[in-house]
Amino acid sequence: MRVVVTDPNLLPLRDELESLLPKATEAVWLPDDVPGALRTADVLVGPAFTQEMADAAQQLRLVQVAGAGTDRIEASGVPVANTYHHEDSIAEYVVWALIGLRRELPAADAALRRNRWRSNVYNPTIPQPDTLGSARVGFLGFGHIGRATWRLLQAFDAQAQAVTASGKAAADGLNWAGDTSRLGRLLDESDALVVSAPLTGTTRGIIGAAELERLGRAGVLVNVARGPLVQQQPLYDALRDRTIRAAALDVWYSYPTTGDRAAPADAPFGELDNVLLTPHLSGITRQTFRGRVQDIAANINALADGQELRNVVRH
Amino acid sequence: MRVVVTDPNLLPLRDELESLLPKATEAVWLPDDVPGALRTADVLVGPAFTQEMADAAQQLRLVQVAGAGTDRIEASGVPVANTYHHEDSIAEYVVWALIGLRRELPAADAALRRNRWRSNVYNPTIPQPDTLGSARVGFLGFGHIGRATWRLLQAFDAQAQAVTASGKAAADGLNWAGDTSRLGRLLDESDALVVSAPLTGTTRGIIGAAELERLGRAGVLVNVARGPLVQQQPLYDALRDRTIRAAALDVWYSYPTTGDRAAPADAPFGELDNVLLTPHLSGITRQTFRGRVQDIAANINALADGQELRNVVRH
Repeated sequence: MRVVVTDPNLLPLRDELESLLPKATEAVWLPDDVPGALRTADVLVGPAFTQEMADAAQQLRLVQVAGAGTDRIEASGVPVANTYHHEDSIAEYVVWALIGLRRELPAADAALRRNRWRSNVYNPTIPQPDTLGSARVGFLGFGHIGRATWRLLQAFDAQAQAVTASGKAAADGLNWAGDTSRLGRLLDESDALVVSAPLTGTTRGIIGAAELERLGRAGVLVNVARGPLVQQQPLYDALRDRTIRAAALDVWYSYPTTGDRAAPADAPFGELDNVLLTPHLSGITRQTFRGRVQDIAANINALADGQELRNVVRH
Repeated sequence: MRVVVTDPNLLPLRDELESLLPKATEAVWLPDDVPGALRTADVLVGPAFTQEMADAAQQLRLVQVAGAGTDRIEASGVPVANTYHHEDSIAEYVVWALIGLRRELPAADAALRRNRWRSNVYNPTIPQPDTLGSARVGFLGFGHIGRATWRLLQAFDAQAQAVTASGKAAADGLNWAGDTSRLGRLLDESDALVVSAPLTGTTRGIIGAAELERLGRAGVLVNVARGPLVQQQPLYDALRDRTIRAAALDVWYSYPTTGDRAAPADAPFGELDNVLLTPHLSGITRQTFRGRVQDIAANINALADGQELRNVVRH
């Protein structure tokens, strides 16, 4: 068995992955010449599969993506499997963002560094903040991430509702679930919006100026899905003008093509003090990749043993 | 019934409190001359009771503190009651601090404002961070705050152990509980320390250089108790030298005497990027004071009806 790994996120868990592979597996890590390395490979573990790679990889029997998204799988003819395990880490990020932004804790930290005690105890003009437990959270999209987040929010005694493509949400305890035609009601009844829907023709730009206005001046937005679900300039304007209260943005409008530097958006979100900006890391933890390594190894062992593959999303 | 309210934290809930008081109650809010206002008062609602106030207040039948701490009650002779309700808000703060500091999310935010994508996806020299779910949390003190925090941490699947004055901890699911002679073991087995014990002769300075070293380089400290439980200079040194990883400090070594400005410590914690500094606000939410207003009103009604007072801590 020859396995080519092109996903650098797995490198910190290299020993763990190799210990789980079938005996006599040859693992090639991050080759410079990927098509060349794929020529005699049985398995590709990586996010992308181009036509050039497919043309070279005559013996390939599995493309195993080390994440959920298969949007960079361009070539066909080989089974493609994915894996998840990021939902608990993303749910933690959402909880972190909602607690901090509802209570303006980052602003309090910035103020105390200048010896200013920014709370209504010391300055009665500052409103008493609200707990996460008192929040009414609206989910736009309610898959793995929505469910994991809701599981945590219930421990805080928060309330929630969801809109999804199907109009259904597989979880107990929500106030209600409906299809995206109910988005307006969702925004009216929520003081936090968690965007966790896939980016599709229907969801691209689904949150614009009118939707942000309905979320309202107390509203907090958290986007852990894809940047373009939320229209960039209306979002910036709403944050700058405080027509919504705050946002945590983990997904962006542009990304580094190489290295670790790029402006994440055209609008200067980084100049605002009511935004948390993070570089698409909400699902990036050791625990996410440990779970993924176990799934990946299970599929490679299944392939070696002639057993059925799991999480196959394309043939 | 005449009630004098000296606690400004109750002002945002003035209407709610007054609506719950017995008919024909006269409520005097934040008088300039407190002893004068107390002369014919039945109840004082406030954090402090000096001998001067006691000498003036000849008809006083209840000192109702609008919080847990009675350390500013200097005079005796009148029953003193307290109230809680801050534990859920403090527990949320602890969760916020632990998620953010374990994953270095504030540093990622600061970096992305400079167009740097600070995660191991874009920079392999950065370690993969760990979830809160994978944390082993040590509690120093395990009263209302510890229990509320542990209730939340269990939803994340974290593990915990506790040391307390009595050696007992009234909660299920802890790995173990012991008295403060087990503090060393607690630190060895924890990668986060939550300080939530009262400040006493025994606990003052209980966390010093040796204890921080045992918490270790991956360790995160959260202090929501009182500043002086943790020795100031050793804490600053450990954070600066990264012998512990990070800290969230909500309680301090000095406080504003008036207004909203004061240096919270002699050491320049505000220059460090691995510390969250907040101005003793972890329990300050609308939900905390709403719960307290209900307790306060219940005691004033009990006094009017000749019923037993609740939460009496001194006679």
